[in-house]
Amino acid sequence: MLAKSQIKLITSLHQKKFRVQHQLFVVEGIKGIQEFLNSHFELYQLFSTAAIFDVESTLISEQELHKISRLKTPNTAVALFKIPKDIPTAPTGLILALDDVRDPGNLGTIIRLCDWFGIKQLLCSKATVDCYNSKVVQATMGSLTRVNIQYLDLEAYLKTYAHAVFGTFMDGNTVYSESLPDQGVIVMGNEANGISEAIEKLVTKKLSIPRFGNLKVTESLNVATATAIILSEFKR
Amino acid sequence: MLAKSQIKLITSLHQKKFRVQHQLFVVEGIKGIQEFLNSHFELYQLFSTAAIFDVESTLISEQELHKISRLKTPNTAVALFKIPKDIPTAPTGLILALDDVRDPGNLGTIIRLCDWFGIKQLLCSKATVDCYNSKVVQATMGSLTRVNIQYLDLEAYLKTYAHAVFGTFMDGNTVYSESLPDQGVIVMGNEANGISEAIEKLVTKKLSIPRFGNLKVTESLNVATATAIILSEFKR
Repeated sequence: MLAKSQIKLITSLHQKKFRVQHQLFVVEGIKGIQEFLNSHFELYQLFSTAAIFDVESTLISEQELHKISRLKTPNTAVALFKIPKDIPTAPTGLILALDDVRDPGNLGTIIRLCDWFGIKQLLCSKATVDCYNSKVVQATMGSLTRVNIQYLDLEAYLKTYAHAVFGTFMDGNTVYSESLPDQGVIVMGNEANGISEAIEKLVTKKLSIPRFGNLKVTESLNVATATAIILSEFKR
Repeated sequence: MLAKSQIKLITSLHQKKFRVQHQLFVVEGIKGIQEFLNSHFELYQLFSTAAIFDVESTLISEQELHKISRLKTPNTAVALFKIPKDIPTAPTGLILALDDVRDPGNLGTIIRLCDWFGIKQLLCSKATVDCYNSKVVQATMGSLTRVNIQYLDLEAYLKTYAHAVFGTFMDGNTVYSESLPDQGVIVMGNEANGISEAIEKLVTKKLSIPRFGNLKVTESLNVATATAIILSEFKR
């Protein structure tokens, strides 16, 4: 049985300001919740229509599940986890940095790519979409538990960063023939505007993904697919 | 001014059976419509709240635009284009084939990738999502006008195909060290189940994208990002 105040808390967490205020976020579905339970994330509350988890949970009705779920077809359970404290960024190895990526689906895909390619640290500019947004959490399929994500003033960070800073631009050198180190920051830009001017100034190596189709067309690659290709090139 | 029958026709086209029946599909927004007008696609009807196109159009009110648009914030115009007749597949060069890709966003992204990497021919199994689905059309950003897409019995096609057939599997040879020709079919599988058993039997070279993160986790890459990496490897 759910109290009104609980329903209010859970649904409020779909807005960033309430996630920040309560330092909580929502995970839905058995598989996703299980991945977070098996990780370093700390459970706050678990609501389920069936007793299938090894941890304390509140049994709720299907009707209550529909009230608190954001999914069209809710999957058994909704959990609240605590937002972890920032772990200071270790400036070693390859780091991916996002300069104002706004689409939750893109951020989710990029977090999965970091997990796949063993990128431990993801830096996000303050205007990048929140990684505890429910659409991002659903899209990451648990990868969120294995990548360290930090929101910060990206410009200030890069100003003090000692190694190479890579960025993708139309006029960069082809990523296929550049020598790519195993230390550095790779910056990916905003969906509509690419990398901002302030960050571009701090990029020390401009890269590009060559286009093989009709060269007269000014279309660009989606930021998530561009990230896939760039990370694959650094790691291959 | 829109007649009731026109509104009924346009909204019916959000369902595949009516697109097939009328052989028409919907394009929304100024930029998208302009790309289709500049292509080999044939316009059927154009509805716009402003006289901004060089072709015959019906002026409609904002209220009417909201009635016929599928977008939350409609952008000025909605156009109906004719679905082109199938162009027979030329079995030369690299061909991408999709074995039951179901998500419109994934198909849209994959069509953009074909356009970027100069893949002229995309083959889709009959259960693959319709490329004239409005979400696919919006996601392709005009790339749909530059890639030849054919729906067919993929198994029957591959049985008669003379060159190599590539597919991505967990146990394939790493794509980073395989010799990749400029002739062949590359098969990408369904989001949940990968490549079907029937198609797997027809694959002559199994590839895989190496995982660099935690190897104990059985997560897979999203089909669109996997396609990005595979096409990049074939073309680099």
